[in-house]
Amino acid sequence: MHAGGAPARPSAPPPGVEVDAVVIGAGPVGLYQVFQLGLQGIRAHVIDALPAVGGQPQVLYPDKTIYDIPALPACTGAELVRALQTQAAPFEPVFHLGQVVQTLATQPDGRLQLRTDGGLTLVARDVFIAAGVGAFEARRLRGPGLDAQDGLRVFHPPLQTPPEAAWPGATAWVCGGDELALDWAFRLCDRGDLAAVTLLHRRDAFDAPPPALERLRQLRQSGALTVRVGQVVGADVQGDASDPRTPMALHLQTPAGDVEHHTAHVLLVCLGLSPRLGPLAEWGLPMARKQLVVDPATSATSVPHVYAVGDVNTYPGKRKLFTCGFHEATLAAYAVAQGAPGDGPVAPQLYTSSSTLLQRRLGALPPPSA
Amino acid sequence: MHAGGAPARPSAPPPGVEVDAVVIGAGPVGLYQVFQLGLQGIRAHVIDALPAVGGQPQVLYPDKTIYDIPALPACTGAELVRALQTQAAPFEPVFHLGQVVQTLATQPDGRLQLRTDGGLTLVARDVFIAAGVGAFEARRLRGPGLDAQDGLRVFHPPLQTPPEAAWPGATAWVCGGDELALDWAFRLCDRGDLAAVTLLHRRDAFDAPPPALERLRQLRQSGALTVRVGQVVGADVQGDASDPRTPMALHLQTPAGDVEHHTAHVLLVCLGLSPRLGPLAEWGLPMARKQLVVDPATSATSVPHVYAVGDVNTYPGKRKLFTCGFHEATLAAYAVAQGAPGDGPVAPQLYTSSSTLLQRRLGALPPPSA
Repeated sequence: MHAGGAPARPSAPPPGVEVDAVVIGAGPVGLYQVFQLGLQGIRAHVIDALPAVGGQPQVLYPDKTIYDIPALPACTGAELVRALQTQAAPFEPVFHLGQVVQTLATQPDGRLQLRTDGGLTLVARDVFIAAGVGAFEARRLRGPGLDAQDGLRVFHPPLQTPPEAAWPGATAWVCGGDELALDWAFRLCDRGDLAAVTLLHRRDAFDAPPPALERLRQLRQSGALTVRVGQVVGADVQGDASDPRTPMALHLQTPAGDVEHHTAHVLLVCLGLSPRLGPLAEWGLPMARKQLVVDPATSATSVPHVYAVGDVNTYPGKRKLFTCGFHEATLAAYAVAQGAPGDGPVAPQLYTSSSTLLQRRLGALPPPSA
Repeated sequence: MHAGGAPARPSAPPPGVEVDAVVIGAGPVGLYQVFQLGLQGIRAHVIDALPAVGGQPQVLYPDKTIYDIPALPACTGAELVRALQTQAAPFEPVFHLGQVVQTLATQPDGRLQLRTDGGLTLVARDVFIAAGVGAFEARRLRGPGLDAQDGLRVFHPPLQTPPEAAWPGATAWVCGGDELALDWAFRLCDRGDLAAVTLLHRRDAFDAPPPALERLRQLRQSGALTVRVGQVVGADVQGDASDPRTPMALHLQTPAGDVEHHTAHVLLVCLGLSPRLGPLAEWGLPMARKQLVVDPATSATSVPHVYAVGDVNTYPGKRKLFTCGFHEATLAAYAVAQGAPGDGPVAPQLYTSSSTLLQRRLGALPPPSA
C-alpha cells in the first residue's frame, strides 16, 4: 500500500495547500497535540498511515485496559482514542488518513513542505511529528503472483479492505492464526452473502480467548467455516484478470509438502502489523537510537519549526508513556504559540477552568456578541 | 492553625516513623505521584495542610470545569480529585492531613527527616514535594481578642470547622461576601438547630451566582437569616471563657463609624484562602522565583532523594499545568525506582496494558498463587 511513492510531478510543482500546522500521526499524542494547538488558536491538519484515527492503541489493543492515564483509573485503548477525539473535535482538525508522509523539506521562505504517497502536498508553518514507532505496515505473504493481486484480490486489513461490491457470492479466504484473523473470519460468516469462507493457518491451533475458540468450533461444526492448514506460496488468475470478479487460484503448500490449488475471489491476510520508521529517518533530522532528538523545553528538533512528540522523540530522562507524550505536546504547542501571529499565545498562563478566551476557543462559551 | 510550631522535644528525639516515600501535598499532582510510586512498588505517606485531599481544585474550584486534562474532555475540580484518588487507592497511601511540614533535614545515614506542626515525625528514603503554590492558609480577621478565640469560637472553614457539639442552640455568625460565605450561611440555616444565623459583610452586596443571591433574598425575607453590614474589630468573653458554651461579644464597626457589640457562640470567617510557600523556602533547596529548581530528566532537586513536582518546581520550559505535573511525577517515580531496593524498578519500560507485574500491583490481577 505504501509502495509506489509519489507520482511524477511537473517540473515546477505548486508549493501545496497552505496550512498553519501539520501533525504527523493520529495516535493519542497526535490527537492531544491537535487539542493543545487548538487552545493556542492554531488549527491542525493530521496525516496518518492508518485508515482510521487512533494509532497503536486503536489497531493493536483497542480492548486492552490502560491504567496509568492520569485521572482515568481504567480505560481501553479504543476508549482512550475516542476521548481524545472528542476533546480535539472543537478545533476541527482536518484528517488525511491512509497516507504516509514521504518528504519533509524546508522551503526558501522557511515554511515546510510535506508530500505524501497519497499525492497530497501541504505547506505548513509548523510540523509536529507524533509518529510513535513509525507508520504501521501489514505483514505480507511472499510468493509468485501475490504482489500483483495486492489491493485487487489480496487485502491487508485494517489498512486495506475490499470494496463492498467484492463480497456478494464471493469465495473468501482469511489467512492468520490470532484473534484478529478469527474476528475477520467471523465477520465474513456473519455477512451471509458469501459462497464460502475458509480460514487458513499454518497449523490447526489458534491463539485467541476461549469464547472466540468456542465460536470457531461451532462455525466449523455447522459447516459455515472451513479451516485449512497450510501456507500460501503463490497465486495466479486464469481469464480476465482486470475483472475483479474473476477469481484467483491460490497455491497452498500443505504440511505434507504437497501443493494444492484453491479458488478465491478475496484473500484477507491477517498476519499482523509492524511499524516502520520509514521515510522520516531520511528527512535530515538529528536522531539517536532511531528517535528524534528534541529540546525537552519545547519538543523542538534542531530544524526550525519541526517538533517531535511522543514515542518518536528522545531527550534526557525520556519515558515512552502517554503521560509524557501529552506533556511534550503541550510544551510544543506553547513554543509555537510564542512565535505565532493571529490572536496569539496564551502567556502568561491561562487556564481552561477560568479563561473565557480558552473557553470560547473550546466552544464551551459562545463567541463574544458583535 | 499553623501557628505554634512543633512542641518542645526531649534532647534525643526518636528519629521518627520510618517510611519509604513521603509526598508533601495531596493535590492532583501529589495524588498522581502516589499512583506512579505505587506502580514502582513503593508505598507513599502524604502530608497536606488542608483537612481533606485534593488541594487547590478541591478547595478553590470544586465545581469549575477543567477542559485540558488529556482524554478527559471536561471534568470539575472535584471530579478530577476523585478520579485521582480512585486511581491511587490500590496503593493504599497513608494520609496525614491538616498538617504543615515544618522541617526537612537529611540525617547522617542519608535518609530524610520531616517534622510537621501536628507533631508527626517521619523518616523517609525519598521525599516528593508536590506543594503547588504552597500550604493554604485562611485569611484572618485582625483585632484585639480575636486570635485568642481561634479554634474555640472563631473558625476558618474549610481548614477549621467547629465541633458538632458547638451547634445546637448556638448564635452563629458568618463573615464574608462571596459564594463560599453564602454557602456556609445557607448550611447553618439548613441545620435548623441554631438560635440565630447572621451573615456579616462590609457592604450589603454579595459576589455570588444569581441562584445563591435569590436564596439569600428569600432567607432574609423569611427571617431565617440576618444580614449585617460592618467589620469585626475585636472580641471578648465575659464569664467562664474556658467553657465553649460561653458566648463571646463581637465588636462590630458600622459603616457610620459606630461600634456595636453582639453576642456570638461561633464565628465562621470566610475571607478566602491564600497559599503560603511557608517553611519549605527555608529547607536549603535551590530556588528560582519562589520555585524549586529541578532537573527535568528526573524532577530531582540538588538535595539527594528530594524531588519536586507540579507547580512548585521550575526548569527550562516549565508550564504550570496538570498535564506537565503528571509527567514530572512519572519521571520522579522512575528516577527513584532505578535506585530502589525491593521488587525493583520497571525498566525496561513496562506498560499497565500488558504487564502482569503492574496489573498485580494495581490489584487488577490477583497475586500469583503460592
